Amino acid sequence: MSTKRVLSGMQASGRLHLGNLLGALANWTRLQQEYDCYYFIADWHALSSSYQDTHEIQTFVQEIAIDWLCAGIDPDKATLFIQSRVPEHAELHLLLSMITPVPWLERNPTYKEKQQELAGRDLSTYGFLGYPVLQAADIVIYKAHFVPVGIDQLPHLELAREIVRRFNHLYGREVFVEPEALLSEAPKVPGTDGRKMSKSYDNCIYLSDDRETVRQKVRTMVTDPARVRREDPGDPEVCPVFDIHKILTPEAEREECAEGCRTAAIGCLDCKGVLLPHLEQTMEPFFEKRSELASRPKDALEVIEEGSKRARLVAKATMEEVREAMGM
Amino acid sequence: MSTKRVLSGMQASGRLHLGNLLGALANWTRLQQEYDCYYFIADWHALSSSYQDTHEIQTFVQEIAIDWLCAGIDPDKATLFIQSRVPEHAELHLLLSMITPVPWLERNPTYKEKQQELAGRDLSTYGFLGYPVLQAADIVIYKAHFVPVGIDQLPHLELAREIVRRFNHLYGREVFVEPEALLSEAPKVPGTDGRKMSKSYDNCIYLSDDRETVRQKVRTMVTDPARVRREDPGDPEVCPVFDIHKILTPEAEREECAEGCRTAAIGCLDCKGVLLPHLEQTMEPFFEKRSELASRPKDALEVIEEGSKRARLVAKATMEEVREAMGM
Repeated sequence: MSTKRVLSGMQASGRLHLGNLLGALANWTRLQQEYDCYYFIADWHALSSSYQDTHEIQTFVQEIAIDWLCAGIDPDKATLFIQSRVPEHAELHLLLSMITPVPWLERNPTYKEKQQELAGRDLSTYGFLGYPVLQAADIVIYKAHFVPVGIDQLPHLELAREIVRRFNHLYGREVFVEPEALLSEAPKVPGTDGRKMSKSYDNCIYLSDDRETVRQKVRTMVTDPARVRREDPGDPEVCPVFDIHKILTPEAEREECAEGCRTAAIGCLDCKGVLLPHLEQTMEPFFEKRSELASRPKDALEVIEEGSKRARLVAKATMEEVREAMGM
Repeated sequence: MSTKRVLSGMQASGRLHLGNLLGALANWTRLQQEYDCYYFIADWHALSSSYQDTHEIQTFVQEIAIDWLCAGIDPDKATLFIQSRVPEHAELHLLLSMITPVPWLERNPTYKEKQQELAGRDLSTYGFLGYPVLQAADIVIYKAHFVPVGIDQLPHLELAREIVRRFNHLYGREVFVEPEALLSEAPKVPGTDGRKMSKSYDNCIYLSDDRETVRQKVRTMVTDPARVRREDPGDPEVCPVFDIHKILTPEAEREECAEGCRTAAIGCLDCKGVLLPHLEQTMEPFFEKRSELASRPKDALEVIEEGSKRARLVAKATMEEVREAMGM
């Protein structure tokens, strides 16, 4: 195992879905083979947009822990933890807040965007503005070398790098490591309505869905909207189902499907019938293990509480250095 | 002892001076007789304006602890602690940040004022903006009923009250107590140059000054600027030395001085000679005990570390309730 450390997290603001599995989690299971990985459930971050309704956060924490284990995130290879179990993140967040200029935060493109996106909630809070400061604390407290991110999160990572440089400069020593982006090209995973799969669109195939629910969702999933009748030829390039084929179906089989679609030799249900076994294979660990793990949720939580203790040791050691450097 | 709790703190951003003694500390020694008092040294707050130069913060913490003990703040009556020794303040600060609207902070009058006052330092930081959120956390984590404040700090306290109301409303239970102001009329204590005594003006009589230094400072202290020659009559009402007389000298003796000044019967040095014994009497505990305590600073620190442990128990208990209420 490389000694390079990777850190990544997921916000406890919903159940995980197929998009999370084919995107982040597939990436995480690869990374844990190569790096010293720290994966955390960000329950404090969930507050930044859900502070008005927090009653599900604990459930999400538990469900995410279970999904991780089903997805093959291995607690013997990676350190899995819950953000709030390592209160040192909050202390570092406070200390970093003292050296972070407000304009750095105001210019953060996702700040205004997200405020608009979630216009129904009041997101003009101090904590929402400071989201990237907490994120920086999350990363640098473990001296992570790499953070797997999508392009849209690059500004946050750059901010973390700026905060690191400012801290190391102000206090005259290299306490923190400048984290680098591991740019991961997230596959496009459309939801059942053709838009990006997202819990806010209510179009998700959840990792907690049972086999029959998944089948039903695939059956009713939107396809090429121009293909109204069975006899109409379709265009796989505009078909959301085909986007999932691209990720899950072997090329030859997929091309056959595409050809059948373009010539109207097969219908959409036929095409979905080709996809389904591959999707079911991908989700098999969830169908098999999930209900069992969910029936004894304490086991999954225990795994992650154990990981939290390990994470905390690292965080505590860093905080010793931080206090020493700042003369606190 | 009343069960009502009082909380107050001092920022670890300098040595304490006569103004602190005649103002806050005189008040604190009274309050500790009546209330369950929590007094803390705010080392994290010191960062908000001194993050660029932190090397003296530890020294200030130690010196303040010593000054408190000399001033008669009694660790058996009050709980004395250091802010950073109770990291739960940082956690609560983070949680409260999630529910505090940025406009509440931007409209805080001291925010812009202080930025202008300390224009040489870059105070456009996130932590500086959030100063009142940390202050609210400091207060409410102990469920303090009263906070002794001057009029200028009322907006901060009002903000803490607003945060309490918002929290209790959002999470549907009365976790926090709305702190009330104990308005204390701080006596006017001018420095040696006649302006308000303040370390930024370099005009202080420090509690750590020895007897000879204090004498020297009083001797050279500015008086009524219109009284140029000994023969000129003076006006006690515009004389900074007389402001201190008003606090320390018994009325009859003081009136005699004032009369002598107005009629030029006595000179400024005579008047100072009347003041000096009263000032020395007030500072006697410092002349007597301070050098001894300063020679074994660990003892004073130990007292305050012990207090920090007690404070932390209270803070931990509140945080249990907070997490429970928020569903974390």
